[in-house]
Amino acid sequence: MFEELKKRVYEANMQLPKYGLVTFTWGNVSEIDKETGYFAIKPSGVPYEELTPEDMVIMDLNGNVIEGKYKPSSDTPTHIEIYKAFDKIGGIVHTHSPWATSWAQSGRGIPCYGTTHADYMYGEIPCVRNLVKEEIEEAYEKNTGVLIADYFKDKDYIAMPAVLCKNHGPFTWGKDGNEAVHHAVVLEEVAKMAVRTEEIEGHVKVAPQELQDKHYFRKHGEKAYYGQN
Amino acid sequence: MFEELKKRVYEANMQLPKYGLVTFTWGNVSEIDKETGYFAIKPSGVPYEELTPEDMVIMDLNGNVIEGKYKPSSDTPTHIEIYKAFDKIGGIVHTHSPWATSWAQSGRGIPCYGTTHADYMYGEIPCVRNLVKEEIEEAYEKNTGVLIADYFKDKDYIAMPAVLCKNHGPFTWGKDGNEAVHHAVVLEEVAKMAVRTEEIEGHVKVAPQELQDKHYFRKHGEKAYYGQN
Amino acid sequence: MFEELKKRVYEANMQLPKYGLVTFTWGNVSEIDKETGYFAIKPSGVPYEELTPEDMVIMDLNGNVIEGKYKPSSDTPTHIEIYKAFDKIGGIVHTHSPWATSWAQSGRGIPCYGTTHADYMYGEIPCVRNLVKEEIEEAYEKNTGVLIADYFKDKDYIAMPAVLCKNHGPFTWGKDGNEAVHHAVVLEEVAKMAVRTEEIEGHVKVAPQELQDKHYFRKHGEKAYYGQN
Amino acid sequence: MFEELKKRVYEANMQLPKYGLVTFTWGNVSEIDKETGYFAIKPSGVPYEELTPEDMVIMDLNGNVIEGKYKPSSDTPTHIEIYKAFDKIGGIVHTHSPWATSWAQSGRGIPCYGTTHADYMYGEIPCVRNLVKEEIEEAYEKNTGVLIADYFKDKDYIAMPAVLCKNHGPFTWGKDGNEAVHHAVVLEEVAKMAVRTEEIEGHVKVAPQELQDKHYFRKHGEKAYYGQN
Repeated sequence: MFEELKKRVYEANMQLPKYGLVTFTWGNVSEIDKETGYFAIKPSGVPYEELTPEDMVIMDLNGNVIEGKYKPSSDTPTHIEIYKAFDKIGGIVHTHSPWATSWAQSGRGIPCYGTTHADYMYGEIPCVRNLVKEEIEEAYEKNTGVLIADYFKDKDYIAMPAVLCKNHGPFTWGKDGNEAVHHAVVLEEVAKMAVRTEEIEGHVKVAPQELQDKHYFRKHGEKAYYGQN
Repeated sequence: MFEELKKRVYEANMQLPKYGLVTFTWGNVSEIDKETGYFAIKPSGVPYEELTPEDMVIMDLNGNVIEGKYKPSSDTPTHIEIYKAFDKIGGIVHTHSPWATSWAQSGRGIPCYGTTHADYMYGEIPCVRNLVKEEIEEAYEKNTGVLIADYFKDKDYIAMPAVLCKNHGPFTWGKDGNEAVHHAVVLEEVAKMAVRTEEIEGHVKVAPQELQDKHYFRKHGEKAYYGQN
Repeated sequence: MFEELKKRVYEANMQLPKYGLVTFTWGNVSEIDKETGYFAIKPSGVPYEELTPEDMVIMDLNGNVIEGKYKPSSDTPTHIEIYKAFDKIGGIVHTHSPWATSWAQSGRGIPCYGTTHADYMYGEIPCVRNLVKEEIEEAYEKNTGVLIADYFKDKDYIAMPAVLCKNHGPFTWGKDGNEAVHHAVVLEEVAKMAVRTEEIEGHVKVAPQELQDKHYFRKHGEKAYYGQN
Repeated sequence: MFEELKKRVYEANMQLPKYGLVTFTWGNVSEIDKETGYFAIKPSGVPYEELTPEDMVIMDLNGNVIEGKYKPSSDTPTHIEIYKAFDKIGGIVHTHSPWATSWAQSGRGIPCYGTTHADYMYGEIPCVRNLVKEEIEEAYEKNTGVLIADYFKDKDYIAMPAVLCKNHGPFTWGKDGNEAVHHAVVLEEVAKMAVRTEEIEGHVKVAPQELQDKHYFRKHGEKAYYGQN
């Protein structure tokens, strides 16, 4: 019944090791079916080499397992909060990809230094604060999602499909699992180049706003002309 | 009719992922046929894994599609301006290769720190300025090419077959698409080593002029003696 | 008679080149059989490409070769001291993996900057001092193990399954050879991200204690809920 | 007649791309036959993918081609001077491997920060000066070899089988071509870790002399006990 969704989420998950974004089981992709409100997600702690489409876990947005022999990713409550807050997205990715995680560990957002960044993400990629002790103890994974949702409350989460959680790592999202993975790859590449940019020039400034606008809007919105559409 | 040209440009494009210069569709190679003035270029936004020789787009220097089912690379107007200005070249490459792009994002040219650089490129690899708002809004891609052409107006574009566009990335060129790719690989390697050179020694100086001359001219010009020619 | 143990230790050793932790023969894995007190270890200086399960050397904790045609790893006396001191472990790894070794060469322990670290290792990964001249001349490899054992005398070596030896490189351990390799991979990844974290933000602080606790204890101990157990 | 030598030198050359030490044709290995005084070396500018054992060029120490259809590596006169000065060696490698070349470009020797270095190379890996204009113009490649030979005149070139040429790159040597390649790999690994060591700790000191001695002499000389000999 959920074969197609499981297959898609399985394939999106398998892109993570292919693009070098995960070591061991340090990542997960989910995708939601808008009609039923059910989503599929990677099972917790199962190595990518052993993963099959049937292993994907089907969940509802109340955190109930609908189908699946495994426990879902321990980050599932974070995915749920993000789906509840961002109704225009269809897929979410979490990884510990090394460059993005290094920025998260540093506690800094990633400034927009060039068009590679501006092509996909509009402005600085934010780094949200640590949860406080009470939030951690009460419901760590859920409150991580609440914090992300809260941060984007008055912001455009389509134009900024990524966030860094301080001392932890990145989450990205998109219209489906595959686009969320695409954004995770972009984030890692942008994070890598931003470190080196600052290394080359200690007093570097962000790219001019008009250049950021040009690149973002040649790929997004009504006047986009990149690609074949 | 353009089968041979398409095949060559296809193969040159496929070198970009092979050498690790592109992520997703972030690069393109073109090559011009000097007799007809037509050039072949990668289609916009088509993934490398799916690319075939037939997908290449044949264009003229006025920006008209002569043959091809796809839209050409969105950077096509930049290629056109470079071909119009640099009549001794036959191929152009644009990438967002990470090391060269990091230099472009930093806004600095790449100093010549050694013979690997001097073997191919004579002197500092320049970084041209940002386009101003009016230039971006009027014709961003075309004006990028105009800026490059203008910068090299009184310079030797054969001895310096590469440029960085500030906050964007590199363009390279050569006698054909294949040599342009070769220069893109050299640029990336040189960009990487220059970052590390400065990291090792904060007060490093460029290579002595006589050493730069020796290496450049043992590979180029009448007295060249490197290789089998 | 030791076929199963040799096979396991062979396979654990072969993970080292697979994960990029060794160049040439710069690493070794051992695993102990708790019933007999015998352990298997990689032979000294034999390239990984040529290694077979039969090449593993079976040793006792007095340093006697029980079975095997080769001399054991020159680091065998270090493994012996660690096994003698840490009775709850079953496997040990030594490598010169580049990021962890760079920290060892710098003489600094690796601060806990994030949850990737806290998921596996509780607190700062220690860097133990150099042996003094007398310790080196008397019994270098044995005294390396004695130093490690001494450092952990009043510490929890299960919660910190890794150590850096100053100007040398890392040792890791676990319940068997495979888990010791797993920890060696984690260490390398954590070491890499810690360098970059400090590069991005010169005044970075360690992750909050409550976040470290949360991640360590969601994976370890009675209240663990990560994975399928 | 020189089939065996050509095959050995071909195989040693093919190790360079395998270990990631060369881009395009930026490297060469030679090996000398002590009886005849002839040596085999890679031809100039021939890509590694197209190389065959028959392509190796047989030379004498006066720079005459004894056998071979190609021109030898343009660095051949450097190899000749090194062979003439270092009579205990049998093979030489030159590369532009990125980490070692970055040190060469910085003009600094590589301090011995740990046992990976001390296992193979005794003390700081030297960086020799630039040739002056007259030396370059008179006989650049030959004088590069003369400079290296001169530097080692009163030093032990067996205990230090590597040198960096300022603003250029490394040469390494060994008892045969294969060992020279082995040293080139070690050099690159050591160069990489030394950069990172200094990045982690700005005031790092070299490894204690007694530790360097221990590691060097457990692998070299009469009291060596590493490996199976």
